[in-house]
Amino acid sequence: MIWVYFAIFLAACFAVGSTGGLFPPGPWYERLKKPRWTPPNWLFPVAWTTLYLCIAAAGARAAISPDNGLAMALWALQIALNGLWTPVFFGLQKMRLGLIVLMGLWGAVAACMVALWMVDWIAGVLFVPYLVWVSVAGALNFSVLRLNPEQASEKAQG
Amino acid sequence: MIWVYFAIFLAACFAVGSTGGLFPPGPWYERLKKPRWTPPNWLFPVAWTTLYLCIAAAGARAAISPDNGLAMALWALQIALNGLWTPVFFGLQKMRLGLIVLMGLWGAVAACMVALWMVDWIAGVLFVPYLVWVSVAGALNFSVLRLNPEQASEKAQG
Repeated sequence: MIWVYFAIFLAACFAVGSTGGLFPPGPWYERLKKPRWTPPNWLFPVAWTTLYLCIAAAGARAAISPDNGLAMALWALQIALNGLWTPVFFGLQKMRLGLIVLMGLWGAVAACMVALWMVDWIAGVLFVPYLVWVSVAGALNFSVLRLNPEQASEKAQG
Repeated sequence: MIWVYFAIFLAACFAVGSTGGLFPPGPWYERLKKPRWTPPNWLFPVAWTTLYLCIAAAGARAAISPDNGLAMALWALQIALNGLWTPVFFGLQKMRLGLIVLMGLWGAVAACMVALWMVDWIAGVLFVPYLVWVSVAGALNFSVLRLNPEQASEKAQG
């Protein structure tokens, strides 16, 4: 059954990941001032595809384990928040709200990692790259917000 | 722990539910031809708030039960798809893609209901109103798509 679970969790990941194609960065994002360490655009889908495989594998390992309630609840919370960021940031171009969503996502991923670890340590390890990437994404969102204050205030009023 | 699980699942529900406020119907939706049985606008948030309480309660009941893997995986899938519809339909105004998302959501909710039922019959019952409402939403999306063919084709090319 672990492969069935893996397929279902992966479908959930790609459902939220599809927002990346539906709400692409576009000219608005291109024009924003970005920090020098901004990863190149091509890296984002590559990173997310790899991460989604790890996230789904972690979910499947926890799903076949006993006493998985907390890990499963937090897995659901992180995927819900994961799907929210792209429509908020690229769709609505709300950088401040995007940062709030990312902070919530970071907390959910960190808590889920710990809960997974208590159920199955390999599942916990599989969430480590995810937490690292969300930290990078949060730092990038924060930097872009600081470097483009006129965009942030304009959208906050809009 | 069931109240902690309930709170986490409910947070996931309201995270995806926030898309209703972020991507409101607006003038585009107001102008669309709609079937006579279209529910009034105020009913949607009321219905979803009630449904989210049931959905979170079902998740929490399954989370404390043994052999919950399939139910938990499908719970995660339905919440991921639930958060996708509003940005697609109201954000991108893509009615056809919205219908595809709703059909996927319907399948995930139906499968989750059965999986929940096998773990805890009350959890399964708590998903029945959700499946009914998604059926109504699917019929409404389909009707709006048929009644406004020029809007549908315009957006399909855009």
